[in-house]
Amino acid sequence: MILVNGDTETSIRPTDRGFSYGDGIFRTMTMRDRRIIQWQRHYRKLFDDCERLGINCPAATVFEADLAKISLHDPDCIVKIIVTRGIGARGYAALEQVEPTRAVLSSTLPSYPSEYATEGVTVRLCDLRLAHQPRLAGIKHLNRLEQVMARNEWNDPAIAEGLLRDETDHMISGTMSNLFVIRDRQLFTPDLASCGIAGVTRDRIMASAVQLGLDLMVGQLELTELLAADEILLCNSVIGVWQIRELEENRWIKGRVTPLIRALLEKDDD
Amino acid sequence: MILVNGDTETSIRPTDRGFSYGDGIFRTMTMRDRRIIQWQRHYRKLFDDCERLGINCPAATVFEADLAKISLHDPDCIVKIIVTRGIGARGYAALEQVEPTRAVLSSTLPSYPSEYATEGVTVRLCDLRLAHQPRLAGIKHLNRLEQVMARNEWNDPAIAEGLLRDETDHMISGTMSNLFVIRDRQLFTPDLASCGIAGVTRDRIMASAVQLGLDLMVGQLELTELLAADEILLCNSVIGVWQIRELEENRWIKGRVTPLIRALLEKDDD
Repeated sequence: MILVNGDTETSIRPTDRGFSYGDGIFRTMTMRDRRIIQWQRHYRKLFDDCERLGINCPAATVFEADLAKISLHDPDCIVKIIVTRGIGARGYAALEQVEPTRAVLSSTLPSYPSEYATEGVTVRLCDLRLAHQPRLAGIKHLNRLEQVMARNEWNDPAIAEGLLRDETDHMISGTMSNLFVIRDRQLFTPDLASCGIAGVTRDRIMASAVQLGLDLMVGQLELTELLAADEILLCNSVIGVWQIRELEENRWIKGRVTPLIRALLEKDDD
Repeated sequence: MILVNGDTETSIRPTDRGFSYGDGIFRTMTMRDRRIIQWQRHYRKLFDDCERLGINCPAATVFEADLAKISLHDPDCIVKIIVTRGIGARGYAALEQVEPTRAVLSSTLPSYPSEYATEGVTVRLCDLRLAHQPRLAGIKHLNRLEQVMARNEWNDPAIAEGLLRDETDHMISGTMSNLFVIRDRQLFTPDLASCGIAGVTRDRIMASAVQLGLDLMVGQLELTELLAADEILLCNSVIGVWQIRELEENRWIKGRVTPLIRALLEKDDD
Protein backbone atom coordinates (compact mmCIF):
# COMPACT_ATOMS: atom_id res chain seq x y z
CA MET A 1 0.00 0.00 0.00
CA ILE A 2 1.24 3.49 -0.81
CA LEU A 3 -0.07 6.77 0.59
CA VAL A 4 1.13 10.11 -0.74
CA ASN A 5 0.07 13.01 1.47
CA GLY A 6 -2.50 10.72 3.03
CA ASP A 7 -4.22 9.71 -0.20
CA THR A 8 -4.03 6.41 -1.99
CA GLU A 9 -2.96 8.27 -5.09
CA THR A 10 0.44 6.81 -5.76
CA SER A 11 2.26 9.52 -7.62
CA ILE A 12 5.07 11.96 -6.93
CA ARG A 13 5.46 15.10 -9.03
CA PRO A 14 8.68 15.06 -11.09
CA THR A 15 9.34 18.55 -9.67
CA ASP A 16 9.36 17.19 -6.12
CA ARG A 17 12.67 18.08 -4.52
CA GLY A 18 12.93 14.53 -3.22
CA PHE A 19 13.14 13.36 -6.82
CA SER A 20 15.25 16.28 -8.12
CA TYR A 21 17.85 16.43 -5.37
CA GLY A 22 17.18 13.70 -2.82
CA ASP A 23 16.09 16.64 -0.65
CA GLY A 24 14.35 14.72 2.08
CA ILE A 25 14.63 12.07 4.75
CA PHE A 26 13.22 8.60 5.39
CA ARG A 27 12.72 5.90 7.96
CA THR A 28 12.18 2.16 7.64
CA MET A 29 10.22 0.49 10.42
CA THR A 30 8.55 -2.80 11.30
CA MET A 31 4.79 -3.00 11.89
CA ARG A 32 3.55 -5.98 13.92
CA ASP A 33 -0.05 -6.47 14.99
CA ARG A 34 -0.91 -3.09 13.47
CA ARG A 35 1.67 -1.24 15.58
CA ILE A 36 5.01 0.27 14.56
CA ILE A 37 7.77 -1.03 16.79
CA GLN A 38 9.37 1.94 18.55
CA TRP A 39 7.20 4.52 16.79
CA GLN A 40 8.00 7.27 19.30
CA ARG A 41 11.72 6.91 18.70
CA HIS A 42 11.24 6.76 14.92
CA TYR A 43 9.12 9.87 14.90
CA ARG A 44 11.66 11.70 17.05
CA LYS A 45 14.43 10.82 14.56
CA LEU A 46 12.23 11.83 11.62
CA PHE A 47 11.54 15.15 13.29
CA ASP A 48 15.16 15.78 14.22
CA ASP A 49 16.45 14.82 10.78
CA CYS A 50 13.90 17.13 9.12
CA GLU A 51 15.00 19.91 11.42
CA ARG A 52 18.65 19.47 10.47
CA LEU A 53 17.69 19.88 6.80
CA GLY A 54 15.28 22.74 7.52
CA ILE A 55 12.22 20.74 6.41
CA ASN A 56 8.90 21.25 8.22
CA CYS A 57 8.16 17.79 9.58
CA PRO A 58 4.41 16.97 9.67
CA ALA A 59 2.99 16.27 13.14
CA ALA A 60 3.13 12.75 14.59
CA THR A 61 -0.67 12.56 14.45
CA VAL A 62 -0.57 13.10 10.68
CA PHE A 63 1.65 10.04 10.26
CA GLU A 64 -0.39 8.10 12.80
CA ALA A 65 -3.50 8.55 10.63
CA ASP A 66 -1.53 7.22 7.64
CA LEU A 67 -0.23 4.30 9.69
CA ALA A 68 -3.76 3.44 10.84
CA LYS A 69 -4.82 3.14 7.17
CA ILE A 70 -1.78 1.01 6.41
CA SER A 71 -2.44 -1.22 9.43
CA LEU A 72 -5.96 -2.10 8.22
CA HIS A 73 -4.49 -3.27 4.95
CA ASP A 74 -1.19 -4.77 6.16
CA PRO A 75 -1.18 -5.54 9.91
CA ASP A 76 2.34 -7.02 9.72
CA CYS A 77 4.68 -5.34 7.27
CA ILE A 78 7.65 -3.09 6.70
CA VAL A 79 6.71 0.59 6.59
CA LYS A 80 8.86 3.22 4.96
CA ILE A 81 8.15 6.90 5.54
CA ILE A 82 9.64 9.51 3.19
CA VAL A 83 9.39 13.23 3.87
CA THR A 84 10.70 15.66 1.26
CA ARG A 85 11.00 19.44 1.25
CA GLY A 86 8.12 19.48 -1.25
CA ILE A 87 7.54 20.71 -4.79
CA GLY A 88 10.27 23.01 -6.02
CA ALA A 89 11.02 25.50 -8.71
CA ARG A 90 14.15 24.78 -10.74
CA GLY A 91 17.29 25.52 -8.71
CA TYR A 92 18.73 24.54 -5.36
CA ALA A 93 17.27 27.44 -3.36
CA ALA A 94 14.38 26.24 -1.19
CA LEU A 95 11.22 28.31 -1.09
CA GLU A 96 10.19 29.09 2.47
CA GLN A 97 6.45 28.47 2.29
CA VAL A 98 6.65 25.10 0.56
CA GLU A 99 4.58 22.21 1.94
CA PRO A 100 6.57 19.04 2.58
CA THR A 101 5.61 15.88 0.70
CA ARG A 102 5.05 12.72 2.72
CA ALA A 103 4.91 9.20 1.34
CA VAL A 104 4.14 6.14 3.46
CA LEU A 105 4.78 2.76 1.81
CA SER A 106 4.20 -0.71 3.13
CA SER A 107 5.88 -3.86 1.88
CA THR A 108 5.97 -7.49 2.99
CA LEU A 109 8.17 -8.52 5.90
CA PRO A 110 11.53 -9.67 4.53
CA SER A 111 12.29 -13.38 4.27
CA TYR A 112 15.85 -13.50 5.59
CA PRO A 113 16.98 -17.05 6.39
CA SER A 114 16.18 -17.78 10.04
CA GLU A 115 19.80 -18.84 10.68
CA TYR A 116 20.89 -15.22 10.12
CA ALA A 117 19.51 -14.53 13.59
CA THR A 118 20.32 -17.88 15.18
CA GLU A 119 23.71 -18.68 13.64
CA GLY A 120 25.03 -15.37 12.34
CA VAL A 121 25.82 -14.00 8.90
CA THR A 122 28.63 -13.91 6.37
CA VAL A 123 29.66 -10.39 5.40
CA ARG A 124 32.20 -8.76 3.12
CA LEU A 125 34.29 -5.61 3.25
CA CYS A 126 33.19 -3.05 0.66
CA ASP A 127 35.68 -1.15 -1.49
CA LEU A 128 33.68 2.07 -1.45
CA ARG A 129 34.72 4.49 1.28
CA LEU A 130 32.10 6.75 2.85
CA ALA A 131 32.87 10.45 2.39
CA HIS A 132 33.09 12.81 5.37
CA GLN A 133 30.24 15.31 5.41
CA PRO A 134 29.57 16.46 8.98
CA ARG A 135 26.61 18.60 7.85
CA LEU A 136 24.76 15.45 6.73
CA ALA A 137 26.31 12.79 8.99
CA GLY A 138 23.88 10.76 11.08
CA ILE A 139 20.82 11.88 9.08
CA LYS A 140 18.74 9.25 7.26
CA HIS A 141 18.45 11.45 4.16
CA LEU A 142 17.59 10.52 0.59
CA ASN A 143 21.12 10.93 -0.84
CA ARG A 144 21.99 7.24 -0.76
CA LEU A 145 24.13 6.68 -3.84
CA GLU A 146 27.07 5.59 -1.67
CA GLN A 147 24.95 2.79 -0.21
CA VAL A 148 23.61 1.86 -3.65
CA MET A 149 27.13 1.67 -5.11
CA ALA A 150 28.44 -0.30 -2.12
CA ARG A 151 25.51 -2.75 -2.09
CA ASN A 152 26.02 -3.41 -5.77
CA GLU A 153 29.65 -4.45 -5.28
CA TRP A 154 28.41 -8.03 -4.73
CA ASN A 155 25.50 -10.23 -5.73
CA ASP A 156 26.41 -13.48 -3.98
CA PRO A 157 23.23 -14.28 -2.01
CA ALA A 158 25.34 -16.03 0.66
CA ILE A 159 26.72 -12.64 1.69
CA ALA A 160 24.18 -10.92 3.91
CA GLU A 161 25.79 -7.50 4.26
CA GLY A 162 28.82 -5.40 3.32
CA LEU A 163 30.87 -3.44 5.85
CA LEU A 164 31.75 0.16 5.04
CA ARG A 165 34.85 2.13 5.95
CA ASP A 166 35.15 5.89 5.67
CA GLU A 167 37.71 7.85 3.68
CA THR A 168 40.21 7.57 6.54
CA ASP A 169 39.68 3.78 6.64
CA HIS A 170 37.76 3.64 9.90
CA MET A 171 34.92 1.12 10.17
CA ILE A 172 31.52 2.89 10.14
CA SER A 173 28.59 0.55 9.45
CA GLY A 174 27.02 -1.94 7.06
CA THR A 175 25.32 -0.73 3.88
CA MET A 176 21.92 -0.96 5.63
CA SER A 177 22.88 -1.54 9.27
CA ASN A 178 24.73 -0.09 12.24
CA LEU A 179 27.74 -1.83 13.72
CA PHE A 180 28.73 -2.82 17.27
CA VAL A 181 31.72 -4.74 18.52
CA ILE A 182 32.04 -6.43 21.89
CA ARG A 183 35.44 -6.98 23.44
CA ASP A 184 36.09 -7.89 27.04
CA ARG A 185 33.42 -5.93 28.91
CA GLN A 186 33.10 -3.18 26.33
CA LEU A 187 30.28 -2.38 23.89
CA PHE A 188 31.81 -0.27 21.13
CA THR A 189 30.11 1.48 18.20
CA PRO A 190 31.66 3.80 15.61
CA ASP A 191 31.29 7.53 16.00
CA LEU A 192 29.02 8.95 13.28
CA ALA A 193 30.03 12.62 13.40
CA SER A 194 31.50 12.53 9.89
CA CYS A 195 29.39 9.96 8.05
CA GLY A 196 26.92 7.12 8.56
CA ILE A 197 23.30 6.97 9.74
CA ALA A 198 22.38 6.94 13.43
CA GLY A 199 19.58 4.37 13.55
CA VAL A 200 16.92 3.78 16.17
CA THR A 201 18.15 0.26 16.97
CA ARG A 202 21.68 1.63 17.43
CA ASP A 203 20.30 4.08 20.02
CA ARG A 204 18.43 1.29 21.78
CA ILE A 205 21.48 -0.96 21.95
CA MET A 206 23.61 1.91 23.23
CA ALA A 207 21.01 2.52 25.93
CA SER A 208 21.12 -1.14 26.94
CA ALA A 209 24.84 -1.18 27.84
CA VAL A 210 24.20 -0.59 31.54
CA GLN A 211 21.65 -3.44 31.74
CA LEU A 212 24.18 -5.68 30.03
CA GLY A 213 26.91 -4.71 32.46
CA LEU A 214 29.07 -3.39 29.60
CA ASP A 215 30.99 -0.14 29.24
CA LEU A 216 29.71 1.84 26.26
CA MET A 217 32.35 3.39 24.01
CA VAL A 218 31.78 5.51 20.89
CA GLY A 219 34.81 6.29 18.78
CA GLN A 220 37.02 5.38 15.86
CA LEU A 221 37.34 1.73 14.97
CA GLU A 222 40.14 0.23 12.89
CA LEU A 223 39.64 -2.93 10.86
CA THR A 224 42.28 -4.70 12.99
CA GLU A 225 40.26 -3.85 16.13
CA LEU A 226 37.10 -5.15 14.49
CA LEU A 227 38.82 -8.42 13.63
CA ALA A 228 40.04 -8.78 17.21
CA ALA A 229 36.54 -8.42 18.69
CA ASP A 230 34.80 -11.19 20.64
CA GLU A 231 31.49 -10.52 18.88
CA ILE A 232 30.47 -8.20 16.04
CA LEU A 233 26.82 -7.19 15.63
CA LEU A 234 24.84 -5.60 12.84
CA CYS A 235 21.46 -4.03 13.60
CA ASN A 236 18.56 -2.12 12.13
CA SER A 237 14.81 -1.82 12.67
CA VAL A 238 14.02 -4.55 10.13
CA ILE A 239 16.65 -7.22 10.79
CA GLY A 240 16.93 -6.68 14.55
CA VAL A 241 20.39 -8.00 15.46
CA TRP A 242 22.67 -10.28 13.46
CA GLN A 243 26.02 -11.51 14.71
CA ILE A 244 28.79 -11.67 12.13
CA ARG A 245 30.00 -15.25 11.71
CA GLU A 246 32.36 -14.82 8.81
CA LEU A 247 34.29 -11.97 7.19
CA GLU A 248 36.72 -13.07 4.50
CA GLU A 249 39.11 -15.55 6.18
CA ASN A 250 37.95 -14.66 9.70
CA ARG A 251 35.42 -16.68 11.75
CA TRP A 252 33.61 -16.01 15.02
CA ILE A 253 31.82 -18.48 17.23
CA LYS A 254 28.36 -17.76 18.59
CA GLY A 255 28.63 -15.08 21.24
CA ARG A 256 27.12 -14.74 24.66
CA VAL A 257 26.15 -11.05 24.44
CA THR A 258 24.30 -11.00 21.10
CA PRO A 259 21.41 -13.16 22.37
CA LEU A 260 21.14 -10.95 25.47
CA ILE A 261 20.88 -7.82 23.31
CA ARG A 262 18.30 -9.48 21.06
CA ALA A 263 16.25 -10.49 24.10
CA LEU A 264 16.36 -6.96 25.52
CA LEU A 265 15.21 -5.50 22.20
CA GLU A 266 12.38 -8.00 21.86
CA LYS A 267 11.24 -7.46 25.44
CA ASP A 268 10.92 -3.73 24.89
CA ASP A 269 9.32 -3.38 21.48
CA ASP A 270 7.15 -0.40 22.29
CA MET B 1 5.78 20.80 -19.95
CA ILE B 2 6.70 17.50 -18.31
CA LEU B 3 7.19 14.16 -20.02
CA VAL B 4 7.71 10.96 -18.03
CA ASN B 5 8.87 8.08 -20.21
CA GLY B 6 7.68 10.01 -23.24
CA ASP B 7 4.12 10.52 -22.03
CA THR B 8 2.55 13.69 -20.77
CA GLU B 9 1.57 11.84 -17.64
CA THR B 10 3.36 13.78 -14.97
CA SER B 11 3.87 11.30 -12.21
CA ILE B 12 6.77 9.40 -10.70
CA ARG B 13 6.13 6.25 -8.70
CA PRO B 14 7.09 6.64 -5.01
CA THR B 15 9.08 3.42 -5.42
CA ASP B 16 11.24 4.96 -8.14
CA ARG B 17 14.88 4.72 -7.07
CA GLY B 18 15.37 8.34 -8.09
CA PHE B 19 12.94 9.29 -5.34
CA SER B 20 14.06 6.68 -2.79
CA TYR B 21 17.81 7.11 -3.09
CA GLY B 22 18.61 9.86 -5.61
CA ASP B 23 19.72 6.92 -7.75
CA GLY B 24 19.97 8.68 -11.07
CA ILE B 25 21.53 11.52 -13.03
CA PHE B 26 20.37 14.74 -14.65
CA ARG B 27 21.29 17.48 -17.07
CA THR B 28 20.10 21.06 -17.40
CA MET B 29 20.26 22.56 -20.89
CA THR B 30 19.10 25.59 -22.86
CA MET B 31 16.71 25.23 -25.81
CA ARG B 32 16.71 28.08 -28.32
CA ASP B 33 14.69 28.07 -31.53
CA ARG B 34 13.58 24.51 -30.77
CA ARG B 35 17.17 23.21 -30.51
CA ILE B 36 19.17 22.20 -27.45
CA ILE B 37 22.45 24.06 -27.34
CA GLN B 38 25.27 21.49 -27.40
CA TRP B 39 22.92 18.50 -27.39
CA GLN B 40 25.61 16.07 -28.57
CA ARG B 41 27.87 16.99 -25.65
CA HIS B 42 24.98 16.83 -23.17
CA TYR B 43 23.92 13.41 -24.38
CA ARG B 44 27.49 12.14 -24.19
CA LYS B 45 27.72 13.30 -20.53
CA LEU B 46 24.30 11.78 -19.78
CA PHE B 47 25.44 8.50 -21.25
CA ASP B 48 28.82 8.51 -19.50
CA ASP B 49 27.31 9.46 -16.13
CA CYS B 50 24.70 6.68 -16.46
CA GLU B 51 27.48 4.24 -17.29
CA ARG B 52 29.43 5.19 -14.16
CA LEU B 53 26.36 4.42 -12.03
CA GLY B 54 25.53 1.26 -14.00
CA ILE B 55 22.25 2.69 -15.33
CA ASN B 56 21.12 1.75 -18.86
CA CYS B 57 20.94 5.12 -20.58
CA PRO B 58 18.14 5.35 -23.18
CA ALA B 59 19.30 6.02 -26.75
CA ALA B 60 19.80 9.60 -27.96
CA THR B 61 16.90 9.17 -30.40
CA VAL B 62 14.55 8.43 -27.48
CA PHE B 63 15.39 11.78 -25.88
CA GLU B 64 15.30 13.52 -29.26
CA ALA B 65 11.67 12.44 -29.68
CA ASP B 66 10.89 13.90 -26.22
CA LEU B 67 12.75 17.11 -27.06
CA ALA B 68 10.80 17.45 -30.32
CA LYS B 69 7.55 17.35 -28.33
CA ILE B 70 8.90 19.91 -25.85
CA SER B 71 10.07 22.19 -28.68
CA LEU B 72 6.58 22.42 -30.18
CA HIS B 73 5.27 23.59 -26.84
CA ASP B 74 8.25 25.68 -25.63
CA PRO B 75 10.62 26.68 -28.46
CA ASP B 76 12.84 28.68 -26.06
CA CYS B 77 13.19 27.24 -22.59
CA ILE B 78 15.34 25.46 -20.06
CA VAL B 79 15.15 21.68 -20.38
CA LYS B 80 16.06 19.34 -17.57
CA ILE B 81 16.51 15.63 -18.24
CA ILE B 82 16.44 13.16 -15.35
CA VAL B 83 17.30 9.47 -15.80
CA THR B 84 16.90 7.12 -12.83
CA ARG B 85 17.71 3.46 -12.38
CA GLY B 86 13.95 2.81 -12.43
CA ILE B 87 11.37 1.30 -10.12
CA GLY B 88 12.91 -0.62 -7.25
CA ALA B 89 12.08 -3.13 -4.61
CA ARG B 90 12.90 -2.04 -1.05
CA GLY B 91 16.64 -2.14 -0.41
CA TYR B 92 19.76 -0.74 -2.02
CA ALA B 93 20.49 -3.71 -4.30
CA ALA B 94 19.63 -2.86 -7.91
CA LEU B 95 17.72 -5.42 -9.94
CA GLU B 96 19.48 -6.12 -13.20
CA GLN B 97 16.56 -6.10 -15.60
CA VAL B 98 14.98 -2.86 -14.41
CA GLU B 99 13.94 -0.25 -17.01
CA PRO B 100 15.31 3.23 -16.35
CA THR B 101 12.85 6.08 -15.78
CA ARG B 102 13.29 9.23 -17.85
CA ALA B 103 11.72 12.59 -17.13
CA VAL B 104 12.07 15.62 -19.41
CA LEU B 105 10.91 18.93 -17.95
CA SER B 106 10.81 22.37 -19.55
CA SER B 107 10.72 25.66 -17.69
CA THR B 108 10.94 29.31 -18.69
CA LEU B 109 14.33 30.84 -19.44
CA PRO B 110 15.68 32.43 -16.26
CA SER B 111 15.46 36.18 -15.78
CA TYR B 112 18.92 36.94 -14.40
CA PRO B 113 19.72 40.68 -14.46
CA SER B 114 21.45 41.48 -17.78
CA GLU B 115 24.35 43.12 -15.91
CA TYR B 116 25.34 39.72 -14.53
CA ALA B 117 26.77 39.02 -18.00
CA THR B 118 27.88 42.55 -18.85
CA GLU B 119 29.20 43.79 -15.48
CA GLY B 120 29.83 40.66 -13.44
CA VAL B 121 28.34 39.22 -10.26
CA THR B 122 28.72 39.42 -6.51
CA VAL B 123 29.38 36.06 -4.88
CA ARG B 124 29.97 34.73 -1.40
CA LEU B 125 32.07 31.96 0.09
CA CYS B 126 29.95 29.09 1.44
CA ASP B 127 30.65 27.50 4.81
CA LEU B 128 29.71 24.00 3.65
CA ARG B 129 32.68 21.95 2.44
CA LEU B 130 32.16 19.41 -0.32
CA ALA B 131 33.00 15.86 0.76
CA HIS B 132 35.52 13.75 -1.17
CA GLN B 133 33.85 10.85 -2.93
CA PRO B 134 35.93 9.83 -5.97
CA ARG B 135 33.36 7.17 -6.96
CA LEU B 136 30.77 9.90 -7.57
CA ALA B 137 32.98 12.91 -8.37
CA GLY B 138 32.29 14.65 -11.67
CA ILE B 139 28.90 12.94 -12.14
CA LYS B 140 25.76 15.10 -12.34
CA HIS B 141 23.84 12.69 -10.10
CA LEU B 142 20.68 13.26 -8.07
CA ASN B 143 22.36 13.33 -4.63
CA ARG B 144 22.47 17.10 -4.34
CA LEU B 145 21.90 17.81 -0.65
CA GLU B 146 25.30 19.48 -0.37
CA GLN B 147 24.30 21.99 -3.04
CA VAL B 148 20.87 22.49 -1.42
CA MET B 149 22.44 23.15 1.98
CA ALA B 150 25.08 25.48 0.52
CA ARG B 151 22.56 27.44 -1.60
CA ASN B 152 20.38 27.94 1.44
CA GLU B 153 23.19 29.55 3.43
CA TRP B 154 22.08 32.92 1.97
CA ASN B 155 18.94 34.56 0.63
CA ASP B 156 20.26 38.01 -0.25
CA PRO B 157 19.13 38.41 -3.90
CA ALA B 158 22.16 40.64 -4.57
CA ILE B 159 24.40 37.58 -4.21
CA ALA B 160 24.30 35.63 -7.45
CA GLU B 161 26.24 32.53 -6.43
CA GLY B 162 28.16 30.89 -3.60
CA LEU B 163 31.65 29.44 -3.99
CA LEU B 164 32.32 25.99 -2.60
CA ARG B 165 35.49 24.58 -1.08
CA ASP B 166 36.14 20.91 -0.45
CA GLU B 167 36.98 19.27 2.85
CA THR B 168 40.66 20.13 2.36
CA ASP B 169 39.74 23.79 1.71
CA HIS B 170 40.48 23.80 -2.00
CA MET B 171 38.20 25.84 -4.24
CA ILE B 172 35.98 23.58 -6.36
CA SER B 173 33.01 25.35 -7.95
CA GLY B 174 29.89 27.41 -7.37
CA THR B 175 26.73 25.78 -6.06
CA MET B 176 25.38 25.56 -9.64
CA SER B 177 28.40 26.50 -11.74
CA ASN B 178 31.95 25.55 -12.63
CA LEU B 179 34.86 27.81 -11.84
CA PHE B 180 37.80 29.17 -13.88
CA VAL B 181 40.51 31.62 -12.94
CA ILE B 182 42.72 33.53 -15.36
CA ARG B 183 46.13 34.68 -14.26
CA ASP B 184 48.87 35.90 -16.56
CA ARG B 185 48.49 33.66 -19.63
CA GLN B 186 46.97 30.77 -17.76
CA LEU B 187 43.41 29.39 -17.76
CA PHE B 188 43.01 27.38 -14.55
CA THR B 189 40.10 25.21 -13.40
CA PRO B 190 39.86 23.02 -10.29
CA ASP B 191 40.45 19.31 -10.61
CA LEU B 192 37.19 17.38 -10.01
CA ALA B 193 38.60 13.94 -9.20
CA SER B 194 37.32 14.03 -5.60
CA CYS B 195 34.15 16.13 -5.80
CA GLY B 196 32.25 18.57 -8.02
CA ILE B 197 30.37 18.22 -11.31
CA ALA B 198 32.15 18.31 -14.65
CA GLY B 199 29.78 20.42 -16.76
CA VAL B 200 29.49 20.74 -20.53
CA THR B 201 30.36 24.45 -20.51
CA ARG B 202 33.46 23.69 -18.43
CA ASP B 203 34.56 21.21 -21.11
CA ARG B 204 33.93 23.77 -23.84
CA ILE B 205 35.92 26.48 -22.08
CA MET B 206 38.78 24.05 -21.43
CA ALA B 207 38.76 23.20 -25.13
CA SER B 208 38.93 26.90 -26.04
CA ALA B 209 42.24 27.57 -24.25
CA VAL B 210 44.32 27.10 -27.40
CA GLN B 211 42.18 29.50 -29.42
CA LEU B 212 42.50 32.03 -26.59
CA GLY B 213 46.28 31.64 -26.52
CA LEU B 214 46.17 30.52 -22.89
CA ASP B 215 47.84 27.59 -21.15
CA LEU B 216 45.23 25.27 -19.65
CA MET B 217 45.89 24.02 -16.12
CA VAL B 218 43.74 21.67 -14.06
CA GLY B 219 44.67 21.25 -10.41
CA GLN B 220 44.19 22.32 -6.83
CA LEU B 221 43.26 25.92 -6.17
CA GLU B 222 43.69 27.72 -2.86
CA LEU B 223 41.46 30.62 -1.87
CA THR B 224 44.52 32.90 -1.83
CA GLU B 225 45.28 31.95 -5.44
CA LEU B 226 41.68 32.64 -6.40
CA LEU B 227 41.83 36.06 -4.82
CA ALA B 228 45.07 36.84 -6.68
CA ALA B 229 43.56 36.01 -10.09
CA ASP B 230 43.14 38.58 -12.87
CA GLU B 231 39.66 37.29 -13.72
CA ILE B 232 37.40 34.66 -12.14
CA LEU B 233 34.62 33.07 -14.19
CA LEU B 234 31.57 31.01 -13.34
CA CYS B 235 29.87 28.99 -16.06
CA ASN B 236 27.07 26.57 -16.78
CA SER B 237 24.73 25.70 -19.65
CA VAL B 238 22.04 28.12 -18.47
CA ILE B 239 23.98 31.21 -17.37
CA GLY B 240 26.77 30.93 -19.94
CA VAL B 241 29.70 32.85 -18.38
CA TRP B 242 29.66 35.33 -15.52
CA GLN B 243 32.74 37.16 -14.31
CA ILE B 244 33.03 37.60 -10.55
CA ARG B 245 33.06 41.29 -9.66
CA GLU B 246 32.93 41.07 -5.90
CA LEU B 247 33.69 38.46 -3.24
CA GLU B 248 33.52 39.76 0.31
CA GLU B 249 35.99 42.68 0.48
CA ASN B 250 37.62 41.83 -2.85
CA ARG B 251 36.80 43.54 -6.18
CA TRP B 252 37.78 42.79 -9.77
CA ILE B 253 37.55 45.08 -12.76
CA LYS B 254 36.05 43.89 -16.02
CA GLY B 255 38.43 41.47 -17.65
CA ARG B 256 39.65 41.09 -21.19
CA VAL B 257 39.39 37.30 -21.43
CA THR B 258 35.83 36.76 -20.18
CA PRO B 259 34.22 38.49 -23.18
CA LEU B 260 36.43 36.46 -25.54
CA ILE B 261 35.29 33.21 -23.90
CA ARG B 262 31.66 34.30 -24.06
CA ALA B 263 32.03 35.15 -27.75
CA LEU B 264 33.61 31.77 -28.50
CA LEU B 265 30.79 29.95 -26.69
CA GLU B 266 28.10 31.95 -28.48
CA LYS B 267 29.73 31.44 -31.89
CA ASP B 268 29.72 27.69 -31.45
CA ASP B 269 26.34 26.90 -29.95
CA ASP B 270 25.74 23.67 -31.84
